[in-house]
Amino acid sequence: MRLLTEKNIEDIALGAAVLGTGGGGDPYIGMLMARQAIKDYGSVELYTLDELNDDDLIIPTAMMGAPTVMVEKMPNGDDIINAFKSVGKYIGKPIRATMSIEAGGLNSVVPIYVAARLRLPMVDADGMGRAFPELQMVTHTIYGLTATPMSMSDERGNTVLMETVNNKWTEIFARSITVNMGAMAMIALYAATVAQLKECAVAGTITKAETIGRTIRVARALEQEPVETVRAAAGGYVIFRGKIADVQRRTEGGFARGDAFIDGIDAYAGKRLQLSFQNEHLIALIDGVPVVTVPDLIATLDIDTGEPITTEGLRYGFRVAVIAMPCAPAWRTAAGLALVGPRYFGYDIDYVPVEERYK
Amino acid sequence: MRLLTEKNIEDIALGAAVLGTGGGGDPYIGMLMARQAIKDYGSVELYTLDELNDDDLIIPTAMMGAPTVMVEKMPNGDDIINAFKSVGKYIGKPIRATMSIEAGGLNSVVPIYVAARLRLPMVDADGMGRAFPELQMVTHTIYGLTATPMSMSDERGNTVLMETVNNKWTEIFARSITVNMGAMAMIALYAATVAQLKECAVAGTITKAETIGRTIRVARALEQEPVETVRAAAGGYVIFRGKIADVQRRTEGGFARGDAFIDGIDAYAGKRLQLSFQNEHLIALIDGVPVVTVPDLIATLDIDTGEPITTEGLRYGFRVAVIAMPCAPAWRTAAGLALVGPRYFGYDIDYVPVEERYK
Repeated sequence: MRLLTEKNIEDIALGAAVLGTGGGGDPYIGMLMARQAIKDYGSVELYTLDELNDDDLIIPTAMMGAPTVMVEKMPNGDDIINAFKSVGKYIGKPIRATMSIEAGGLNSVVPIYVAARLRLPMVDADGMGRAFPELQMVTHTIYGLTATPMSMSDERGNTVLMETVNNKWTEIFARSITVNMGAMAMIALYAATVAQLKECAVAGTITKAETIGRTIRVARALEQEPVETVRAAAGGYVIFRGKIADVQRRTEGGFARGDAFIDGIDAYAGKRLQLSFQNEHLIALIDGVPVVTVPDLIATLDIDTGEPITTEGLRYGFRVAVIAMPCAPAWRTAAGLALVGPRYFGYDIDYVPVEERYK
Repeated sequence: MRLLTEKNIEDIALGAAVLGTGGGGDPYIGMLMARQAIKDYGSVELYTLDELNDDDLIIPTAMMGAPTVMVEKMPNGDDIINAFKSVGKYIGKPIRATMSIEAGGLNSVVPIYVAARLRLPMVDADGMGRAFPELQMVTHTIYGLTATPMSMSDERGNTVLMETVNNKWTEIFARSITVNMGAMAMIALYAATVAQLKECAVAGTITKAETIGRTIRVARALEQEPVETVRAAAGGYVIFRGKIADVQRRTEGGFARGDAFIDGIDAYAGKRLQLSFQNEHLIALIDGVPVVTVPDLIATLDIDTGEPITTEGLRYGFRVAVIAMPCAPAWRTAAGLALVGPRYFGYDIDYVPVEERYK
């Protein structure tokens, strides 16, 4: 167990934004809320799974929908607490802690806010090891764990609780309700015991995010070359450096889909990288050849600061480095690839682990 | 208390279809299910509100969505039981009975099915005294009673339970989930005590529907003139007789809206009646002058059989009588008219009680 203080929040959010692979949301409002909650209620205890009892019950908390809406339509904080308590009441057993369900700028800090306000611990794990656009895309699903009972709450005081026959149905209902709630909802779902999480969750995500975030911050302070430093901290490969030449966006089925085209510089001069995204980066092709695909992680970093750029932040003229990182092993199983492999997202491409392409 | 047997079901459904004012659904599948349930589990006890204790808790049950879908996508029966039990479990108190929330061909018999299967009584009342297209349009809303906790279930086994800040939000969320569930969902909502129902509910609806239905059946058997007989049983006015000259339909916001144009015959020759509907009949104009408006009831009857015709059953060439009936008094209050008056449905027309126009 260690304590998360105000100082840790920014590093966690920054590093989680790298793991968020272009998605997972801008953490600004979430960071403000988590920081204020720690100021008001005290530091948050962060536990590894090994430090908890096997039958302890954990309920993850998160934001669902469009993080960009948060700036216009502030959550009031009670909403996420309502969602968490609603699932807890429905289950009718004591809840030991909360945790992140995805590693993204926003959803890494939402549970910190919940933990601070309710004076509950937080678990150092998540359900993706990265960010994904749909609810059923968590390692829990691979292991047969159910998303429901799931609760969704809005800032008005509305709460919707569902029990579905599978996690795809949870996604269908929750997506509609998120739209009704104003493109954004606060959610609690995937209640599980520590024993179950030891089997299915991605352990150590918060610490990993914090390490990456701290590396970026220190590199900036010491004026180190940031990209290689971040790559080393994240454990991946630099696959491209270039300048964004074009970004094409379209909204399909409630998701922000699109492609960014990056013209190579330095060692990559004369080459072009195409980055396809659906909320998160999905596929990178260099001169038409796939080099990294989902579920492996693809992050774009500002070449000068090492800061991650979200898909909605991609702009003509930005100088970026593209790095690739191996995904959590569970995603590489047949069940994992059926959930989040390139073909699920409509690309007729086989998944090849990034280490095999860049060994 | 009296017993509802198989024999009562058809009369109730037929009469409720008159009160359904063109909506409330074709009762065919619902009747089959209710009849089979009575065959399997025995007769249903129908209680008046006065025969129950003031603190007895009642949960109404209904179908939400497009009744036409029921023929394609049969409810399996467990769905409505799941919805009912889900609300009961959430409230955590014993439930005394179920009841109808609207008087319509389908939703008058759905609670009979539930009562038979669970061997629970049914209350002789509803929340409209007619049918309406939206969830918040019940007399309960006028008296400040909440629709939630509300549960929705589908034939797959999915259940969604919601707690909303007002009944309009219940409608918004429930409408989305109904679409997700396949345009049809089985629902339980508006839990209330008998004391509350004595204040707000429309009492005696099931008996009234049965009386009207029996009248139609007997008139047919005795070859009596049916329209006047039905009018007398329903307590209203014959406002037109004619032949349907045109029906224009459009789908707006998930509702079946449209207008039927009826050319007068007999005493009405040379006149034209325009009937505007949104699931239910809303406004009748004769030669452009409003003669009956929502919330008063407008029913179209087959001129030869006296059988009610739903809005989706209106066809070119049908010979029909149009009858109008006064609505429940609660709808004529300022709060009632704000919920279901002509202006709510987008018509710039003042409500005038039908008795004042036809005294």
